[in-house]
Amino acid sequence: MPGVSIHVVDVSRGVVAIGMQVELRHAGHVLASGATNAKGLFDHPALAATFAPGSYEAVFHIGAYYSRQKNVPLPEVPFLDIVHYRFGISDPQQHYHLPFKCTPWGYSCFRGGA
Amino acid sequence: MPGVSIHVVDVSRGVVAIGMQVELRHAGHVLASGATNAKGLFDHPALAATFAPGSYEAVFHIGAYYSRQKNVPLPEVPFLDIVHYRFGISDPQQHYHLPFKCTPWGYSCFRGGA
Amino acid sequence: MPGVSIHVVDVSRGVVAIGMQVELRHAGHVLASGATNAKGLFDHPALAATFAPGSYEAVFHIGAYYSRQKNVPLPEVPFLDIVHYRFGISDPQQHYHLPFKCTPWGYSCFRGGA
Amino acid sequence: MPGVSIHVVDVSRGVVAIGMQVELRHAGHVLASGATNAKGLFDHPALAATFAPGSYEAVFHIGAYYSRQKNVPLPEVPFLDIVHYRFGISDPQQHYHLPFKCTPWGYSCFRGGA
Repeated sequence: MPGVSIHVVDVSRGVVAIGMQVELRHAGHVLASGATNAKGLFDHPALAATFAPGSYEAVFHIGAYYSRQKNVPLPEVPFLDIVHYRFGISDPQQHYHLPFKCTPWGYSCFRGGA
Repeated sequence: MPGVSIHVVDVSRGVVAIGMQVELRHAGHVLASGATNAKGLFDHPALAATFAPGSYEAVFHIGAYYSRQKNVPLPEVPFLDIVHYRFGISDPQQHYHLPFKCTPWGYSCFRGGA
Repeated sequence: MPGVSIHVVDVSRGVVAIGMQVELRHAGHVLASGATNAKGLFDHPALAATFAPGSYEAVFHIGAYYSRQKNVPLPEVPFLDIVHYRFGISDPQQHYHLPFKCTPWGYSCFRGGA
Repeated sequence: MPGVSIHVVDVSRGVVAIGMQVELRHAGHVLASGATNAKGLFDHPALAATFAPGSYEAVFHIGAYYSRQKNVPLPEVPFLDIVHYRFGISDPQQHYHLPFKCTPWGYSCFRGGA
C-alpha cells in the first residue's frame, strides 16, 4: 500500500494529539492540509497517493496545539512553534508511516516502517 | 476498545521489527508470548482482554533479534539483551497502545494513546 | 575515561530531572544509590569505576518523582513507577553515557556515546 | 550560563556523531557553522553568546554524514538529508542544551534542560 500516514502523539500526557494542524508539502505545493482526528491521525485522501521519489515535508503546528491545551505551562516564546519535518521518498511502492511524538519541548520522528 | 497493543519498529534501519520474541506478563504470570508479525505487531488474542488495574510488563528479546540480522555489528556483550518494560494500567476501559522503537543501542517507549 | 554516567531529563517540561532516585545494580548488588543533582546528573563516585564486562541495571524512580511535582496530572495507577533499564558493558575501557529522557508516559534511553 | 549547546549522537550505532556539519541560524543569518567534534559536540564560540528572545534554527547535515559511514545501507533518495530544527529562546539567561539523536531513519530532539 503506497502513500504516507501521519500519527501524532502528545507524549507529555500520554494521549494522541487531537486537532493539531498538519500539512504535507512537496516542491513548494501543499499536497494536504488539515487537523489530526480523534485518533491522532492526519486522515486526508491525498496521503493515499503514490508519491514520486523526492523530498517531502510534513509541517506540524505544535505551538498552536499546546497553546490551546489547559494546564500546560509555556514560555512567552514557545520552544516549539511550527515544526518542519523533511523526509525523502525513495520507493513509491512502499508505505511511509510517520509517527510523530511531541511534548512542548521536543519531538521524536522515526519512520515507523513500510 | 480495551486491551493492549504492542508495535515494534527497528529505527536503526527504518523497518518494522519482524520475528522479535515478546511477552506480556502480570503478577508473575505470562499472559501472552509470541513473535512480532510481518507488520511489527505482537498479535496475540490475550491482548484484547480487559485488564485489571495494576502493573504489567512487556518483555522484548532485542538481543536475539539483532543477533539474527545481517550486517548489524554488535559487541561481544550486547548493549541490549532482554528489555523489561513495566507499565501500569489504571483504567481497564482504555486501550493501551505501546509503540516500541529500538536500535541495538537503546529504545524509546512512550504510550501511544488511548 | 571508563565508567558510567547517567543524566535524566524530564522532556515533558524541558527541564533536567532533579531529585529523582536512581540506583545502579549488578549481579544482585546495588553499586550506587542516590538522587539526581541540580544538573540532572546521578553523581556518585562508584560510577567512575572500571566495570567488568557483563549486565548492569539502572533503576529510575519515575513514579515517585512525578508524584512530587506540581500540576502534573497522574492516573491512580501511574503508567510508570520504577523503571529498570538493563544494559551490557562489553569494553571496560569505554565510557557508557546513559542519557534518560522521560515523561510520566514513557521514556527514551539510547546510549549517548563512548 | 547562557547560550546554546548542541550534541549529536548516532543512536543507530551507539556512538557520538563525529564530523557532522551543523549550522545555527537566526533571522536569515548563519550564526555558527562547523562540524561536530570527537565528542559529538558542535563546539563553536558563537554558541556561548547571550541570545535575544526569538526563533532560531539548528541545521544538521545528516544525509552527508551517513553517506560517509561504512556499512550503512541507504536508499537512493535518503530518508533524511538536511534536517532543520527550529526552536525558540524565551529567556536569554537560560542555557539551551539541545541533544540530537539520529539514525538514517529519524531523529529525536528534546531540550536537554537549562
